[in-house]
Amino acid sequence: MRLQELPRHLARRCLGIPRFCRETLGVDLRGTRLVVAYSTGLDSTALLHLLALLRAPLDLTLVAAHAHHGLRPESDRELEHAEAVCARLEISVHTARLDVPALQATSGQGQEECARRARYAFLDSVRRNQRADWVVTAHHGDDLTEDIIMRLLRGTGWPGLGGMPGVDPGRALLRPLLDWEKRELRAFLEETGTDWCEDLSNASPERTRNRVRHDILPLLRRENPSLFKTATQLWTQARIDEEYWNRELPELPAPGRDFLLDSALLCGHQAKRLRLYKTILDSMGPGQTLASHLLLLDKAWVRKNCGRTIQFPGDKIASVEPGGIRFHFQKRTP
Amino acid sequence: MRLQELPRHLARRCLGIPRFCRETLGVDLRGTRLVVAYSTGLDSTALLHLLALLRAPLDLTLVAAHAHHGLRPESDRELEHAEAVCARLEISVHTARLDVPALQATSGQGQEECARRARYAFLDSVRRNQRADWVVTAHHGDDLTEDIIMRLLRGTGWPGLGGMPGVDPGRALLRPLLDWEKRELRAFLEETGTDWCEDLSNASPERTRNRVRHDILPLLRRENPSLFKTATQLWTQARIDEEYWNRELPELPAPGRDFLLDSALLCGHQAKRLRLYKTILDSMGPGQTLASHLLLLDKAWVRKNCGRTIQFPGDKIASVEPGGIRFHFQKRTP
Repeated sequence: MRLQELPRHLARRCLGIPRFCRETLGVDLRGTRLVVAYSTGLDSTALLHLLALLRAPLDLTLVAAHAHHGLRPESDRELEHAEAVCARLEISVHTARLDVPALQATSGQGQEECARRARYAFLDSVRRNQRADWVVTAHHGDDLTEDIIMRLLRGTGWPGLGGMPGVDPGRALLRPLLDWEKRELRAFLEETGTDWCEDLSNASPERTRNRVRHDILPLLRRENPSLFKTATQLWTQARIDEEYWNRELPELPAPGRDFLLDSALLCGHQAKRLRLYKTILDSMGPGQTLASHLLLLDKAWVRKNCGRTIQFPGDKIASVEPGGIRFHFQKRTP
Repeated sequence: MRLQELPRHLARRCLGIPRFCRETLGVDLRGTRLVVAYSTGLDSTALLHLLALLRAPLDLTLVAAHAHHGLRPESDRELEHAEAVCARLEISVHTARLDVPALQATSGQGQEECARRARYAFLDSVRRNQRADWVVTAHHGDDLTEDIIMRLLRGTGWPGLGGMPGVDPGRALLRPLLDWEKRELRAFLEETGTDWCEDLSNASPERTRNRVRHDILPLLRRENPSLFKTATQLWTQARIDEEYWNRELPELPAPGRDFLLDSALLCGHQAKRLRLYKTILDSMGPGQTLASHLLLLDKAWVRKNCGRTIQFPGDKIASVEPGGIRFHFQKRTP
């Protein structure tokens, strides 16, 4: 299948992908090497085929990466399907069997979180081995809408509330389909006669994400049939504000184990100070920072409650001192 | 009933009201004259009685205002109830019969919107006649949560997405119960043996607001039982950011019918420019400004597409000129 052979409306939509990457994400796809996260589900099947169509015009080098989670009876069949599809498209495919139950046993985390971490570690290893520029995932506009609701529920502040970024240079992650609706991806596959494997785990009501998708989002869409557009606009504003705050905040050294945020950097507006605390705490490692704790810390600073310490998840501590706020880790009792 | 006679936990919660007004809303209630919007429903009954308890310690002057909407068979009974309760509390009550059907016929707006406008016009007239400082409404934390979801559905950008302000100096409007949950208000009424009139119109599934309240919010609360707290934190961040942007934006003259936003004011970050456009358009009068239109206008300005005009709801126009952006109104054909 070549771009020229597509119905014109599909070809035009397909050519929208490099434009979205360039104009909205600031990434020029031409001549890049891409690792495509390919699960054989609807979304990633569409992504793989869309990028295959763009391969010649954009001079792309494509590599597929398929993770065998070993969690579902269909996993073996999906692996075979992935290999067959990639052979037909002349795309080399890298596969890995992730032992999620073993990871769960050692890390103590939930199944979904373990599978996610193992999958991204695998994708990143393929990217490094292949000297690729980006790992490309099939997250689309419906995922974005869902993500905004998930973040609202989780208490994410602004601009994080606007949803997942389209480009994450730190993790070399690119999401070029965020301005597509799922139904457009489905229509593309159906119109081009491309088949995919249904992922049955997406229907399980045991996961919050699936309950948001199947129970909550339909009710929200009933009130606003253009919810996808509304979500995309919120996302756009969040990206603009994120870039704004990145410029407004001072350059900070890598915080390491112990870092004094000098009082000279603490004389700006509260909106700026709160984002400064969050940036420092995030850079110290994992652990979700709650807005209420940030506000407590700021109150302690403004009132110059020297000696006051605020604990954050991930054993992080902030202590108010006369010369500023010290960020450090809790000493564990041996 | 006096504050001293309340169970201690209720007295403490009641004294939280002036603290919330002072510390969070920046309003000192002591010695003020307040017009209490009193519908006889649960929320405003609690508000009226809580303020009555605070009357002596805070030296408040209270006036109640009750609007008879003439829309429901219970309206007459509610009016009588309002008068009896206010007589018992020794609070003078002002009442008005709003002819909502007549207003609907002349304005062409929906019933709910007409009733809302007429009610606020009445409350404001009482405030002026009584030379009161504030109109006080009983909006609480559950209303705030609902408002955030309504704004998300409507496509409100940040910081508006954070929900209704607690104080609106332009309209002399104060919402001192935003940090109360509805169940706390109910518990206060039940513990003090105070009765109220149930508002049956709040249950009608014909209104978006009621569907959000009865269908969507319970599902969101199932995922996050502390949704009220989460919403309050988002609201707090929005208030901080709102104040930040108010300081960052330049002082603008009253725009009037025709206003040139000079290019010198257009050299800041896009995050700032978008909020500048929104502030100007809002100050020109009613009409919901869409984020997508603001982004279009900004693109036209950045690309210096002189002569390009963008239309906004409310007959507002923005035209890109060499020296800046001109905001004016569409000339109507006679």
